Amino acid sequence: MKNIGLAIHGGAGTILRSMMTPGKQGAYENGLQSALDAGYKILESGGTSLDAVETAVKFLEDCPLFNAGRGSVFNHEGQHEMDAAIMNGADLAAGAVCSVKGIQNPVSLARAVMEKSEHVFLGSTGAEAFAKHLGFEILPDTYFHDDLRYEQWQEALKDDTIRLDHTERKFGTVGAVALDRHGNLAAATSTGGMTNKKFGRIGDSPVIGAGTYANDATCAVSCTGHGELFLRAVVAYDVSSLMAYKNLSLEEATHEVVMKKLVKIGGEGGLVAIDKAGNIALPFNSEGMYRAWKNKSGQAVLIYKDTDTKI
Amino acid sequence: MKNIGLAIHGGAGTILRSMMTPGKQGAYENGLQSALDAGYKILESGGTSLDAVETAVKFLEDCPLFNAGRGSVFNHEGQHEMDAAIMNGADLAAGAVCSVKGIQNPVSLARAVMEKSEHVFLGSTGAEAFAKHLGFEILPDTYFHDDLRYEQWQEALKDDTIRLDHTERKFGTVGAVALDRHGNLAAATSTGGMTNKKFGRIGDSPVIGAGTYANDATCAVSCTGHGELFLRAVVAYDVSSLMAYKNLSLEEATHEVVMKKLVKIGGEGGLVAIDKAGNIALPFNSEGMYRAWKNKSGQAVLIYKDTDTKI
Repeated sequence: MKNIGLAIHGGAGTILRSMMTPGKQGAYENGLQSALDAGYKILESGGTSLDAVETAVKFLEDCPLFNAGRGSVFNHEGQHEMDAAIMNGADLAAGAVCSVKGIQNPVSLARAVMEKSEHVFLGSTGAEAFAKHLGFEILPDTYFHDDLRYEQWQEALKDDTIRLDHTERKFGTVGAVALDRHGNLAAATSTGGMTNKKFGRIGDSPVIGAGTYANDATCAVSCTGHGELFLRAVVAYDVSSLMAYKNLSLEEATHEVVMKKLVKIGGEGGLVAIDKAGNIALPFNSEGMYRAWKNKSGQAVLIYKDTDTKI
Repeated sequence: MKNIGLAIHGGAGTILRSMMTPGKQGAYENGLQSALDAGYKILESGGTSLDAVETAVKFLEDCPLFNAGRGSVFNHEGQHEMDAAIMNGADLAAGAVCSVKGIQNPVSLARAVMEKSEHVFLGSTGAEAFAKHLGFEILPDTYFHDDLRYEQWQEALKDDTIRLDHTERKFGTVGAVALDRHGNLAAATSTGGMTNKKFGRIGDSPVIGAGTYANDATCAVSCTGHGELFLRAVVAYDVSSLMAYKNLSLEEATHEVVMKKLVKIGGEGGLVAIDKAGNIALPFNSEGMYRAWKNKSGQAVLIYKDTDTKI
């Protein structure tokens, strides 16, 4: 069988063992494992990398633990505004949505934008109208309600100032990258953004080249981190460019971008990436990153920094 | 005096001499010349590239001939939804807005996002709330009314199908890139998008790395073209990457991206770019591109393909 591989993430940031209970840790690990298994099964049975990343991300969107889909944080108005993107490395087709409400799986709406519209990027109420037009169900706010997220929002509201501050140093995003047996790469990313976010803030997740990118000639990348810095550094495409133009390996390119270039500008976070040979890299410069991977060499579900991530 | 330089564009596409009257051509040329002069004056008097590109783009936004600001086309709902971005090559600071209505100069709102928020990218009604918060005037739809644009919209409505089609092969965008005497580069882009656009479509203009990018180490780039293809090709950052990682010159890098890579995927359009030495490139693969440039070597205001654009 040809090489196949899948890597996923559920966000990066200040994730410390000291802040975790065994029960909570187990729940996160189960969530990651389920998403990994669901996506990998598709690859094993000869399915496409596009289906694998969409399926893995849908699992993470449906799990209330992760800040995407059902588990999306509350924005300043107490609503859940989500962003997502997907890209096909075979033909550079891409789809993305930003600031959408009431969509169970924004990653699937991003895929519909890619496959059923002539556009790449749809936003806000327009994207929701497109979803309705295609028969997507628009869910009530209650679907996205979670007591913990609600408390986080209430606390953020208390401290609220007129500045566009965010204080939580956890970057909730989910994402997946995959290589299928046809040799095609794909990437997908989805997020609920920042707690108490205002003014329609859009991060890197739905931006092709910043939070999400796939190209069969180089790699597939999905990012999680301080979105503003990732946007300014065009992170995902930078990894691809370093491979294409400087002949760096996936490991070298992702290390250069995450551990050097991002660190230099204070861009906290990480990414998951895979190349056409099935090599996987999961670098991050924050305390932790919820992540999992599987390929012919093995598999792992990981959270902390002190876990060996060398594959 | 150190090298300074400015290049601007007012959109690309099927712009043919046969479709132009002398009066119309003169009006376009005057609009470009005014914007060029206003921006260049700032550079000559020691001002920043950031001020120069913002000023030049504001001139183009205020001119009803160009599809940005006042001259923005009608969307499907008969409104004017605008996108803009600005980036400072000195520190990679960036600001962008998408799908904003009622703003006279979206480029100035993008600059406010960069300088007065902790964010890079704000969208839709949230971005408008941010504008109001800062004291930006919210203008009525009538400010953006133009009989020609209205007729274009009515015609587009007649042919309207359920598909996200666009038939006009003219990519209305305005943009500017500049080098100031401090050696700093900047880029800005602004657009009213596509006539009769639906579903909150966002193009490449406000996307850092796609339609707009500036980095003192390489170049400043502002694009105009079929936004979806420019998004998928991460055009502006690709030019920068080719210079940074393959040591191509500005001319070589822009030629590679616009005349080879974009042509290969059917990405019609062009860009204006400047490097730290003040070299300017204005390649386009469409029939024409409204464009103008000025540096120590001279200046020109150009529209058609058969005009010599070699500097």
